[in-house]
Order: sequence, then C-alpha cells, then structure tokens
Amino acid sequence: MSTRQERDAFGTVEVAADRYWGAQTQRALMLFRIGSERLPPALVHAIGLQKLASAQANAGLGELPAEIVDALQQAAREVADGKFDDHFPLPVWQIGSGTATNMNANEVIANRANELLGQPRGTKKPVHPNDHVNRGQSSNDSFPTVMHIVTVLQIHQRLIPALQGLHQELAKKAEAWKDVAKIARTHLQDATPMTLGQGFGAMARQVELGVDRATESLKRLYPLAQGGTAVGTGLNAKVGFDTAFAAALAKLTGLPFTANPNKFEGMGAHDAMVEASGMLNTVAVSLAKIANDIRFLGAGPRAGLAELVLPHDGLTSSIMPGKRNPTLAEALLQVCYQVMGNHVTVTHAAAAGHFELNVAKPVIVQNVLKSIELLSDAASVFGSGMVAGIEPNTATLQRNVEHSIMLATALNPHLGYDKVAQIVNKAFAEGTSPKQAAIDLGFLTAEEYDRLADPRSMLGPRP
Amino acid sequence: MSTRQERDAFGTVEVAADRYWGAQTQRALMLFRIGSERLPPALVHAIGLQKLASAQANAGLGELPAEIVDALQQAAREVADGKFDDHFPLPVWQIGSGTATNMNANEVIANRANELLGQPRGTKKPVHPNDHVNRGQSSNDSFPTVMHIVTVLQIHQRLIPALQGLHQELAKKAEAWKDVAKIARTHLQDATPMTLGQGFGAMARQVELGVDRATESLKRLYPLAQGGTAVGTGLNAKVGFDTAFAAALAKLTGLPFTANPNKFEGMGAHDAMVEASGMLNTVAVSLAKIANDIRFLGAGPRAGLAELVLPHDGLTSSIMPGKRNPTLAEALLQVCYQVMGNHVTVTHAAAAGHFELNVAKPVIVQNVLKSIELLSDAASVFGSGMVAGIEPNTATLQRNVEHSIMLATALNPHLGYDKVAQIVNKAFAEGTSPKQAAIDLGFLTAEEYDRLADPRSMLGPRP
Amino acid sequence: MSTRQERDAFGTVEVAADRYWGAQTQRALMLFRIGSERLPPALVHAIGLQKLASAQANAGLGELPAEIVDALQQAAREVADGKFDDHFPLPVWQIGSGTATNMNANEVIANRANELLGQPRGTKKPVHPNDHVNRGQSSNDSFPTVMHIVTVLQIHQRLIPALQGLHQELAKKAEAWKDVAKIARTHLQDATPMTLGQGFGAMARQVELGVDRATESLKRLYPLAQGGTAVGTGLNAKVGFDTAFAAALAKLTGLPFTANPNKFEGMGAHDAMVEASGMLNTVAVSLAKIANDIRFLGAGPRAGLAELVLPHDGLTSSIMPGKRNPTLAEALLQVCYQVMGNHVTVTHAAAAGHFELNVAKPVIVQNVLKSIELLSDAASVFGSGMVAGIEPNTATLQRNVEHSIMLATALNPHLGYDKVAQIVNKAFAEGTSPKQAAIDLGFLTAEEYDRLADPRSMLGPRP
Amino acid sequence: MSTRQERDAFGTVEVAADRYWGAQTQRALMLFRIGSERLPPALVHAIGLQKLASAQANAGLGELPAEIVDALQQAAREVADGKFDDHFPLPVWQIGSGTATNMNANEVIANRANELLGQPRGTKKPVHPNDHVNRGQSSNDSFPTVMHIVTVLQIHQRLIPALQGLHQELAKKAEAWKDVAKIARTHLQDATPMTLGQGFGAMARQVELGVDRATESLKRLYPLAQGGTAVGTGLNAKVGFDTAFAAALAKLTGLPFTANPNKFEGMGAHDAMVEASGMLNTVAVSLAKIANDIRFLGAGPRAGLAELVLPHDGLTSSIMPGKRNPTLAEALLQVCYQVMGNHVTVTHAAAAGHFELNVAKPVIVQNVLKSIELLSDAASVFGSGMVAGIEPNTATLQRNVEHSIMLATALNPHLGYDKVAQIVNKAFAEGTSPKQAAIDLGFLTAEEYDRLADPRSMLGPRP
Repeated sequence: MSTRQERDAFGTVEVAADRYWGAQTQRALMLFRIGSERLPPALVHAIGLQKLASAQANAGLGELPAEIVDALQQAAREVADGKFDDHFPLPVWQIGSGTATNMNANEVIANRANELLGQPRGTKKPVHPNDHVNRGQSSNDSFPTVMHIVTVLQIHQRLIPALQGLHQELAKKAEAWKDVAKIARTHLQDATPMTLGQGFGAMARQVELGVDRATESLKRLYPLAQGGTAVGTGLNAKVGFDTAFAAALAKLTGLPFTANPNKFEGMGAHDAMVEASGMLNTVAVSLAKIANDIRFLGAGPRAGLAELVLPHDGLTSSIMPGKRNPTLAEALLQVCYQVMGNHVTVTHAAAAGHFELNVAKPVIVQNVLKSIELLSDAASVFGSGMVAGIEPNTATLQRNVEHSIMLATALNPHLGYDKVAQIVNKAFAEGTSPKQAAIDLGFLTAEEYDRLADPRSMLGPRP
Repeated sequence: MSTRQERDAFGTVEVAADRYWGAQTQRALMLFRIGSERLPPALVHAIGLQKLASAQANAGLGELPAEIVDALQQAAREVADGKFDDHFPLPVWQIGSGTATNMNANEVIANRANELLGQPRGTKKPVHPNDHVNRGQSSNDSFPTVMHIVTVLQIHQRLIPALQGLHQELAKKAEAWKDVAKIARTHLQDATPMTLGQGFGAMARQVELGVDRATESLKRLYPLAQGGTAVGTGLNAKVGFDTAFAAALAKLTGLPFTANPNKFEGMGAHDAMVEASGMLNTVAVSLAKIANDIRFLGAGPRAGLAELVLPHDGLTSSIMPGKRNPTLAEALLQVCYQVMGNHVTVTHAAAAGHFELNVAKPVIVQNVLKSIELLSDAASVFGSGMVAGIEPNTATLQRNVEHSIMLATALNPHLGYDKVAQIVNKAFAEGTSPKQAAIDLGFLTAEEYDRLADPRSMLGPRP
Repeated sequence: MSTRQERDAFGTVEVAADRYWGAQTQRALMLFRIGSERLPPALVHAIGLQKLASAQANAGLGELPAEIVDALQQAAREVADGKFDDHFPLPVWQIGSGTATNMNANEVIANRANELLGQPRGTKKPVHPNDHVNRGQSSNDSFPTVMHIVTVLQIHQRLIPALQGLHQELAKKAEAWKDVAKIARTHLQDATPMTLGQGFGAMARQVELGVDRATESLKRLYPLAQGGTAVGTGLNAKVGFDTAFAAALAKLTGLPFTANPNKFEGMGAHDAMVEASGMLNTVAVSLAKIANDIRFLGAGPRAGLAELVLPHDGLTSSIMPGKRNPTLAEALLQVCYQVMGNHVTVTHAAAAGHFELNVAKPVIVQNVLKSIELLSDAASVFGSGMVAGIEPNTATLQRNVEHSIMLATALNPHLGYDKVAQIVNKAFAEGTSPKQAAIDLGFLTAEEYDRLADPRSMLGPRP
Repeated sequence: MSTRQERDAFGTVEVAADRYWGAQTQRALMLFRIGSERLPPALVHAIGLQKLASAQANAGLGELPAEIVDALQQAAREVADGKFDDHFPLPVWQIGSGTATNMNANEVIANRANELLGQPRGTKKPVHPNDHVNRGQSSNDSFPTVMHIVTVLQIHQRLIPALQGLHQELAKKAEAWKDVAKIARTHLQDATPMTLGQGFGAMARQVELGVDRATESLKRLYPLAQGGTAVGTGLNAKVGFDTAFAAALAKLTGLPFTANPNKFEGMGAHDAMVEASGMLNTVAVSLAKIANDIRFLGAGPRAGLAELVLPHDGLTSSIMPGKRNPTLAEALLQVCYQVMGNHVTVTHAAAAGHFELNVAKPVIVQNVLKSIELLSDAASVFGSGMVAGIEPNTATLQRNVEHSIMLATALNPHLGYDKVAQIVNKAFAEGTSPKQAAIDLGFLTAEEYDRLADPRSMLGPRP
C-alpha cells in the first residue's frame, strides 16, 4: 500500500496515499480498535454542513484569507454531499468529545481544499486544518452542534414522514371499519362492544401524537453550541460568529437553527438529546402497543383470537410448512426494545458529564440516530407491509360480540348494578347467555332485554 | 375488633366497624398482600376531586336523585380534603386498572354520604357505590383520569416551584461570581479560563430549561379519559358527561383540563405518562450533572479541586472525627438514580398494555409520583442547604488560572496552531510555563505574551 | 414535647426525650427532608446483628472495657430483635455512605447500653457511641457489611422460600396435566400439539432455575467489608478483627459469612449487589413470562383463548358487574416491571462510585431489598391465589388440537416438506382440514393420514 | 445482474446468480428493510457449527441418505469457517425466531452441498434445505441453540482473555506501587492514607471477579434447546438426536455443551441470556468505576488531582494545541453505558415472550454479542494503551499525604473520638495542621503526635 507522510503536533504519521485524512485521524484509527460501528454517514454529512456554515460565517466576518474561501467551501460541501464518506473511518468508541471525528473533518477538508488549489495532500497549505477549517471553532462546540444538526435532520426527514405514513394507514382502517362491531377486551377479558374502527382509531391517534411529540422535540435542538469554542466562552472566535453561523445553517437547511444563548449549557450537558431520546422512547412505547394488539388480534388461524386476517408475507416456518407468522410485528417490537435500551444508554451517558464538557458525545448521538433510523424504517415497513394488508375476520368478530356476557352492562341504568351482577353470575355459573339469565331471574322479558342490551346502541354514550 | 357486614356482587364480608370502606376493598386488602407501599395520599385526594367533579357533572345532567347530590358531593370533597386518607388501605400492587382503589373510593364515599343522610354504613342506600358514586364512570376511565389529575397537580404544586427555587439560588451565584475567574476543565483536564459565574450560569440554565420541560409536559396530561367508561365508547355515561366533567374539574382546580377526544387512547395507552416520566428523567440528568460538579469542585479540603467551599451540614464521619462531606449532593444524586430507574419501570409498564386497557396503571402512576416527590424535595434542600451556602475558594481559583498551560490557546490567532503546539509541548515536557516556553522558542517576548495571553481577555469571543 | 440535650463534635442538639437517638441522628433528620421512605426494618435488624458481632469480636480481642461488654451486646441484640425500629427515623435519601444510619445505631445502642448500666440517655458514658459501639469500625465498612447481611438474609428467608412455593404449585400442575393435550403456539400462532403439563413444566423449570440463581448469588455476598474501617486499610481496627467478626456473624446467623480479602473492593464498589440485582432482574423476567402466559391462556370467558379457567378472586369491575379479571397476574407483572427499573437504579448507582467509597449505598440496598420483598410477596400470593386454583378448560383444549392445521407437520418425514406445504396452503386457502387437503391432493388416504398425524404421537420425538 | 430462479412453498423468486441463498432468504431480504445491522459473522459461524453437529448426529442416527452426508457436512463446515459470510445478508430486525436466518443457512448449505455433488444451485436435490439440512430441527430450537453456542464462544474466546489481560496490567501496578503512599478519598474528600498499590489492587480484584462472573455465566448457557424442534416436544426429531447433537458439538468445540432437559424452557424463555447480559452489566459497572478513578486521578496537569501521569496517546485538541486527554478512559466509559443500555433491551425482549416461543431472539443475541465485543475490545486497549503506561506523580502523592487533616484519625484509640474531633475542627477553622492543633489544645506533644499519627503506620490494622 502506497502511503504519504502527514504531520501533526507530535510528529509524522504514514497515511494511505489515497486517503484524504491526516495524522490525527490516522493516530485515532490505530488507537481506538473497539467494535465495528462507525459514526454513520448522516453524521458525516452534517459535519460537512457545519464546516460549510462555519466557512460562510468566517468569510463574512473577514476571518479567512480570500484566496482559500471558495476551495474551503467547496470541500465542505462535498463532505455534506456524501462524496467523502469513505474517508471518515473512525469508530463510535473514541474520545468522548468527538474530537477525533472533528479532526478527521478538518484534515479531509483541508487536504481536499488544497488539492482544489493545486497542492498535494499533506501540505496543510494554503489551507490549514486547524487555523482555517476549524477557524473560530473547537471540537467541543462543533461536535455538539453536529449532534443537533443531524438529529434535527433525521427527525425531519425520516422519523416524521415514517410516522405520518403509518398514521395514514391506520387512519384508513379506522375509517373503513368504523361500523364493524367487535368485542372490547379489558384485562384481556371480554368486555362491552366497540367497533374495529374505534380500535384502529386509537392506534392512529397514538401515532398522530407521536408526530406531535417528534415535532415538539425539535424546539430545544435548534439552539446550537457553535461559538462556544473550547469551553463555552467563545475564546478565539470572532464576536458574532455564533449568530452568523446559525443564520448560514438555517439558510442551508431551511430550518430555524439559532445560537444557544448559553454555550456552556450546550457543551457541558446534553439534556436536549436526552429529551429527544425520551421522545423516541415514548414513540417506541406507542408502537409496541400497536404491534402487540395487531399480532394478538391476528393470532390463529384457529386457536387464537383471529379477529384480524394479517397479510401473508411470503415467509414460513422451517419445520411447519406453510405456517404464517406476524413477522413484521415481531421486527417492529424488537426495534422498540432496542430503542428503550438505547434511551437508557443515552441517559447514563448524559448524566455522566463533568464540568465544561460532557465526554460521552459519540455514544449519545449514535444511540439517538440509531433509534431514529430503526423506528423510521420499522414504522414504514409495518405500515405498508402489515397494516395496509389487514382484513377483518367478520364471522369471528360477530360471533364474539353476540356471545359476550358483558352485554349485560347496558342494563345497569335500568336494573341497577346489583341485579346485573346477579344476571352475570348466573350466566357464568350456568354457561348460559345473560339474556337467558335475566329472563330466568324474572328481571326482564326477552323483548325488554333485546331492546336494552342491543350491541349497536352500546358503541357510544347514552343520548 | 368490632365489625359490620358489607355486601357485594359475590356475598358478604366482615369489615372493621370504624372503617368506611366496603366489601370489595376488604376483599382486595386480603388478596393483595404484596409489599408495604400504598398509593399515596396525593392520589387519594385526586380521587376525591374526580368523584366531586363527576357528581357535579352528573347532577347538571340530571343523572342523580336530587336528595343525594349534596351528601355525595360533600363526601367526595372530604376525600379530596384528606379526611379519609386512613380509609384507603390498598397497596400499589393490585389489579392493574386500579379498580380496587376506585371501588374503595366508591365505597367510602357512599358510606360517608349515607351517614350524612342518616343511614348506617353498609346499607348502600340511598347512595349506592356503583349506581351513584360511580355513575357514568368505570374504573377504566376514572383511574387514568386520576393519574393525570394527580400528576398535573404535583408537577404544578411541587416540582415546578422546587425547580424554580433551585434555579434562583444558582442564578444568584451566577450573578455574584460573574467576575471570578477560574480555569475551565474539559475531559477533566485543565483548559482555558472562564468565570465561576459562567459555570453556575450553565447550571441555572439547565434548571430553567427543566422548568420549561415540566411546564410543557402538562400539555398532553390535561386531556382526560373520563367519559370513556368501560372500554372507551362511553357506554352508560350520559352524552356530554365528559365535557361537563372536564369543565367542573377545571373550575375546581383552576387548570385547563379537557376531555380527551379519543378515550380509547387515554385508557388503552399511557403514552402521556411515559412522556412525563421522560421529562422527569431529563430533569434528573440535569440535576445529576449539577450535583456532581459541585461536589467535585468542593472536594478537599487539601487534596481535591477545592475551588468551592461547601457549607457545613453538621454531620461528620463515624471514624474520622470532624470530617465534612457533600451529603446533600449525594442524597440528590441517589434521587436522580432512582428517577432514572423509575422511568424504566414506567416504560416497561406502559409498553405492556393490551387492547382496550393498559393494566399497569398503579405502578405507572406510583413511579411518576415518587419521582416528582423525590426530585422536588431533593432539589429544594439542595438549593437551600447546599447551593445557597457555597463560597468560592479565591486563592485556589486564582492559582489554577495562573498556572494553566492552556492559556497559550489565546496565541492561536497570532502564531497559528502549530507553533502554539510547540510551546505547549515544551511546557509539558519541561514543567515550565507556556510563557517561558514561548520566550525560549523565540516566538514572543514576555510583553507580547502577557498582552496576548491575558486570562481577562479570554472570557469571551474576540472583538 | 419534652426534650433532652445531645452533644456531638459540633455542639448540642435538642432530641425528643423518649427517643434513643442522639445528636448526629437528629441533625440528619432535620437535614434530609426528602421523600417518605425510611430504610426498612429488616436493614435495622441487620445493623443490630452487625453491632452485636462487632461487640463480640472486639470483646474477644480485648478491645472493650469489661464492664460495658454485656450491656453493649444486649443493646445490640435488642436492635436486632426489632425493639428499636421506631428509633431509626432516617430516610433512604441521605449521605451516600449510610453514615447517618450507622451513627443512628451507634447512638441508640450507646444510649440503651448506658441505660442498662444505670445512666441517663445523652451521657455517652460509660458507653460512647464512637469509641465503643463503633469500635474498630467505620460507617464505610459497617454499612456495606450490613448491606450484604440483610440481602443474604432476605434472599434466604423470603425470596428462596417464596420461589420454592411457587415452583411447587407449578410442578403439581405439570404432573396433574401431563396427559392433557393442547395446541402449542409459536409466534402466537397455532403450532403442533403438546401437553398442558409440558407447558406448566416449563414454567416450573424457570422458577426452579430462579431458585438456583438466587442461591448462587449469595456466593459473592458472603464476603464482608467489615475490618476495612475508614478507607479499606483497617486503620484503628485490631488485627484479626475482620475474621473474628465474620466468625461471630456466621455463628449468629448460621450462614457462611467471611472476611472479604480485599476490603477496598468491598467498600469502593458494589459489584456484588449489582450481581444480586441482576439475579432479581432475571427472576422478574421469568415471572413476567409466566404471568403473561397464564392470563392469556385464561382470557375469555368466550372471546379469548380460554384454555384455562382461572380461580375467581372475589373482585369485579366497577361498571361491568360480575366481570372477572386475572388480578394477581397483573399485580405480579407490575412487580416485575418495578424490579426491572430498580435494577437500572442499582446499576446507575453502583457505576457512579469514586475512589475509596461508593456513596450511593442507601439507594442500592433499598432497591435490592424492595425487589426481594416485592418478588417474594407477589410470587407467594400468585402461587397460592392463582396457580393453585387453575383448572383446564378441557373442551376448548381438545377442540383447538383437533382443528389445528399444523398437525400436518407430522407428515414431513413421510411426504417431505414441499408436499406438506402444498397441503397446508390448500387447507388455509379453502378453510378446510389438512386431512381433507391431503386426500384431495391425492397424497394420502384418510386412514394413512389418521395414522401419521395422530396428535397423541406428536408429543415427543420419533422412536 | 444475472439471476436464477429459486422456489419455495409459495412460488418462485429471482435470486442473484452468484448468491448461494434461496427463495426464503430473498423474500426476507426484500421484506425486512430495517436498519443497517446484520447479524454478525460470529453468529453465522456458530450456525455452521450447529448445522455440522446436526448433520453428524443425524448421520449417526441413520436419518440421512448416505450419499449426501459428506457434502452436507463439508458445506456446513465451510459456513463455520467463514467462507460464506457474504451469503448471510439478513438484518437483525427480522422475524423474532430467527427463522429467516436459519432458512438462509439451510438454503446456503443445500445449494453448496448440491454444488459439491455436481448439481446447480436452486435444484434442492439431492440435498433439500428443509428435509436434509434442517433434518430433525426447527428454527425454534436451532436458533436458540446458536444463541448459546455463539455467546459461549465469544465469552470464552474474547471476553475472558480480554479481562484477564486487563487484570494482569492492573495487578502489575498493584505490585509495583505497593509501598507508594497516597491519601485515600471518601465522599471525594481527603481521608486517611493508603497505598497506590492498594488502590490498583482493588481495581485488579474487580476485574478478577469479573473473570469469575464470566466463567460462571456459562453454566446455564451450556444446556441447548436443540432437539425441541417446533414447540419443545421434539416432534419429527429422532429419539436421541438431542444428546447426540450435544455430544457432537462438545467434540467440535471442546466445551461441555449438553442437551437442555427442558426444551420448552430453552425455547419459550431466554432467562440464561438475560443472566449472561446481567453478568456483562456487572462487568460494565466494574470497568466504569475503574475508568473514572483513573481519569480523575490523572486529571491535570496542574489544576486536577494529578496523582497519576497518564500515557500520552498522540491525540490532542482541535483548538487547544498540545492538550492531552484520557481518551481511552472515555471510550471505555461510553462502551460501559452502551452495555448497560443493551442489558435493558435484553431484559425487555426476554420478558416479552409468549407461550412456546420467545420471538425477540435476534435482538437478544445481537445485544449480548455487541456487549461482549465492545467490553472485550475496550478492556484490551484500555489495559495496553492506558493502564500499562501510567506512572505515579510522586511529588503530588506525597504532598497530599503530608497535608491531610485526617491523619488525626489515628489518634482515636489514644485520645478518644471527641478530642480528635476538637483537633480537626480547630485545624479546619484555622487552616493549620492537626499536629499544631493537637499541640495548641494541649492534648499531645509534637513527639507524641509524630509517633501516633505516622502515615506509614496507617496502612493496615493495629497490631
């Protein structure tokens, strides 16, 4: 393998000739031999945006030599566009400030900008990774800024659309089945009637509120730590850099990013990320409930609740030929468990910050991004591959309604609780219908019963 | 012990003569012999409010016999006022709908109302626990309604004031020490200067945002499930009961409670409680960071960072006489760990709901209430007993600033990153000051160094 | 209220005249106004044992004046016997070493011993709380010792017997129903046959392994930190105190307690408590599975799986008169969620130790004890109140076996997987039996089918 | 892209011509478009072992046509050897039984075996993926078997050696520094003296116990579910297959795998995996404590505790040139937080099983494997890259010991607790040494003090 020499504060290092990174990245690569997970491409792209907005802000403040501005911005834009993903080789498990990855970006962009300006890689001239690419910045404010940028973008671009898509599928079913009666279940036990549409309406509502939660979680992610530099004071940044940066980024993304009025808070703590992770945890709770209800109602075909017919996904058992299983519900549930665990990781990591810098940044952003990715993908395929294809099992639904003992509940306002209890106890004991029990007890005639305990009149409050 | 007979759907039960509860409560008491934690008084009081608002709504809708309305409302009000706390003996660990506790309330209020109307306990006449106290209600909509009421009240009355009090103490320090220089620490290592006021300002900001988070968490707690009755349909409630109830409760509490437009969502799921618990988790993360920073900065007296002098609390060691320890920080941290664990419990419990009813309601509300109580109390005593009494150790603070190698960072814009690195490496290796190293390297004169690396000019961005 | 003066290193404090505690306890009581949970009586009793064994060891080593030995030991024994529970008023949320509670014990025992020797409370003579009761000890080694003692005792005396009791109930059912055929469910879907006894046998096996886990968890709880004193070195303890203490305690309890060979490990870390908590978490996972299976199999009466008839517990719905619910399963499940959350609290708290002392001891032991108490109680009442009373619903069990499509799986060795798949697909599509499908496809005669797919021959491997 | 047709129970599917997988794998690949994580190569290799041992057991029992045995075994062996890693494309987020991955293995091995026997891929002849590769097996017993195999192997081959390596580094330091005095810290505050070797000895002991915990966790992982087939009964497996399988696997791996006596337990529950995850959680707690202590003791260089000089790793700050940070401690801590979160995921997933099959298997095994990988790698690099290079800062260590107020604790046995408290209070108040205070109070002469409070005699119990 052909190499070149890259130089940093502590000497020179050999780097593969075709890589754009420099000495600090190479050292980090050799040091952090832990696991196999890299920080994801979406984060690398957000770094590109962060460096581009920095270059724009610095240029506007006269902080950069005129002759390097264009090349620097182009190089940053190429990172944002994903052209250098393969040049960000570092694992999640690195220095807790994400410095290694910020250095990686500085080095790649400097080398690329110098290349655009006709210089070979490794020269650090005319564009220097620290003096120019990292101008007015520190890893300590840049990386948390990137954490917020990428989280906002992923919530906007992946999570919210995925939840909206799932909501739409559920809402369609709620509408389609608004008159299909079914027996409700409380404590898993037969209860009074409702409609299948009401059931899917509750699921749709949960997801709709999830969209609200996701949207509101952005509020405290928009303020950015950029401009705090090393410790929050803004040392070495030009006055006005923070707001110029936020304005540049807002323009680049079309989203209302702002400068955090308290940089110390944005660098020493990651409460906003914990809050976002809490939102993801809540969404996971919602989706777990939905996945469970659908797979239980679809269980069968003959010894389960079997009120729903789930779409066949083409998979089957390795030993029970032709067996059909609610696989997408299981995949979604596993995703939900992962998100719940990721949230605990984020909580631990965020609570463990000290003084002016939380140094568990990579694990925090990795877990939040992973949760967004998994929830988004799983919600999408569950919506299109599962919900959209569900059909009601009308015969079973109807039989369950007709046989329910709890229809007797409708008699309460007429007979009082105690007499209805007698009816139900008798029906239980004798395995008969509450109607028969009511008649046998002499409380009602058959006609009275049918009028008072009509399932169709039990689907809403009393007029 | 003198007893009386109480009767329910399954027969008669002996109840202590001086207790207001009835047969179902007594059965539950004998059944759920698990642990020692009762649902807390605050929840019992909220049930009183829920029953009072129900009675008002039902009265307005003509659903109650005129002759019992006053007694019923008075009895409910007495429960809300805490006069019957000793008559709610049931543990947290009970039926997952909280039915036993709702029945308990129905029985106590019926017995008390009948007593007010001149009847002995146990008669169920003229006020019947189910037909009148529980009129138009089910445990399944009442208990989740109570969960929201008590959570809202506790956030309002305990958590927010406690956080505001702590914020005020921190903000006072931030203001008082806004010119006291200190060395910042990143990665626990010496970094560039800041002020002690900036440090406490970051803490104050975290708590201020905690108040915002607490306030915003109420949004999805205001909508109430009341009116859904058994399964969400509203069966047996009078049309309009839900909105009449919410209006009555809003008037009683002065808070904007509303009827949940989707009762099924409010009974089958408790996403809003998970969301509130997530808020508490975020607040715990904030407070853990603050408690840690204060105890580490106050560590010593002679072999620790010792930049803060913590107030003496009067306690000491059992073996090291006179030793002083940051006890309130430790108490607060333990509270934070508990809140983080409680949040996991809430998440598990809420994700495990099925069909029309989540049946882990008591454990959910218990953990949320416990977290609110602990965070509120601990934040209060930490604010008044710890933060208020902290003093800066000026000599140590000043010495740390003067000796810091990282003052050299201010030279970056003048010498460039690479030369500054040479200075710092030399100072590290030789144990000397960066000033001496800069002079020895011939980069700067002593005067230039003092002008460029003046700590007083390092507390904000470059003009 | 009548008071007396108690004196400590920092002055005098008023204490209620009838209380045995002293100045440090009183100060702690006024300081730690957080929450309502006290450290539980079981822990207080363990402190009594710890002080008694200390007094025995010190007496044997000649460390105590002869004239106070008897009184000191009697006072400690009375604490162990629960006679002074009301004199331990401190909350969980206190100094992280448990020092306040250790001081509380020193003060109560000194006052009681002096009383036995004819001196009034508050004299500290002839028995001094620190010089004698705390002789050769520190809170820093005593409290972790108490944590291990009480955890071991509670696992021995509560958890293991409770699990054994539950195991016995499950094993009885496994034996009783070993020939009752049922349809198995995988992915919640109908699968091949098994017996109801096999199902309950799996539950019994889970609980049996839980007993093994509980027993093995004691291994690293038996070694005790006692003898480490302030920081682990054993300063001020007499050589041999640690082993004499462990021997005395082993004799008092009949359990193989030993001196931890590395006191620093036992005071600075609580990995053994995390391990025990992990055991409780595993047991909770087992019991959650069991509770869920039982309540789902018992769901109905008419629109659920209804393969089991669950015992009626006497409770019912507040709106659906006579409705029966699996309340003890719900109580047990809620306990399991609590234990899982408590485990996260313990993990946080134990990971947050620094240097020579973990200072989250009270929250760690409180959560472990709470989990033991809840699991023990809930397993007991679930065993006697639920499992013992379950009956099989023979008609439903049999019908489900007969109708199962997956009986066709038994044909695999004869027809090969692909032909069986054709049979099942046809049965699915046409709503017919696999037998009919097999015949229609010309693969088998009716007689062949009945011989090959006999459910009775599907309950074990092929001979 | 060139394709071929593969056929399964539901029709034909196009598969890339150069892939060895078949129709079910291809369908799963198109269905489970969730996230980017595949089940890891180590798991694929364990599947190879599971299929090889199955083929050996079946061959021994006469269950396979003689002419395919060699090819089948060779194909399985190649999978175990990692030659087909690229042919296992499925994500973690799939059907909860891992069926898709078991089918993948069946298809790859069948196609490869047929190829070895001169047949093109896709023919399913003479080797059929279900009838032969999956002979006597189901995904439902095979996948949990693989979970145990891969977990055992990874604990053996990665975790235990990594912990042993870290233990060795710590133990070396404990030995080397056994006479280097330092001040201990309790509550972060200065306490009595100890040695640096004692401090590292405690860390070494924690890791040594971690090795014990890891070793003991294998006990309940050795029993395997193989032989349970579809639901635990063993339907379609030949009698004796389970024990023949375990024997074959034990021979292949040299590890004491056995047949689980209760297959239902091993398929319906994953308590053994939760237990293993709990072990990993405990190890993470241990390592977090160690990483924190080392980075805090190494903090500085001038305004931190600075008792240790940490090795320089070659990385530095992007804004503070030459700054050195404890990066490997931060990486290790982040790993620990991840492991703690993964454990919660495993707990959720394992508690959510129903009936005869837990269907969260992939997420469970993925999280356990990830935790093992991360802890192993991080412990290794932390041992060699951090611990091995630490040096004591002798000057600081000595100064801290000399200045400590708490040396006065050694006076307790001579003066009594109360007089020592006076000394310490005076030293605190006047900023003087306890020696001076003791003299000023007239309690001791200088000579007496030096004799009684000699730090060298404070490192162990009193003779």
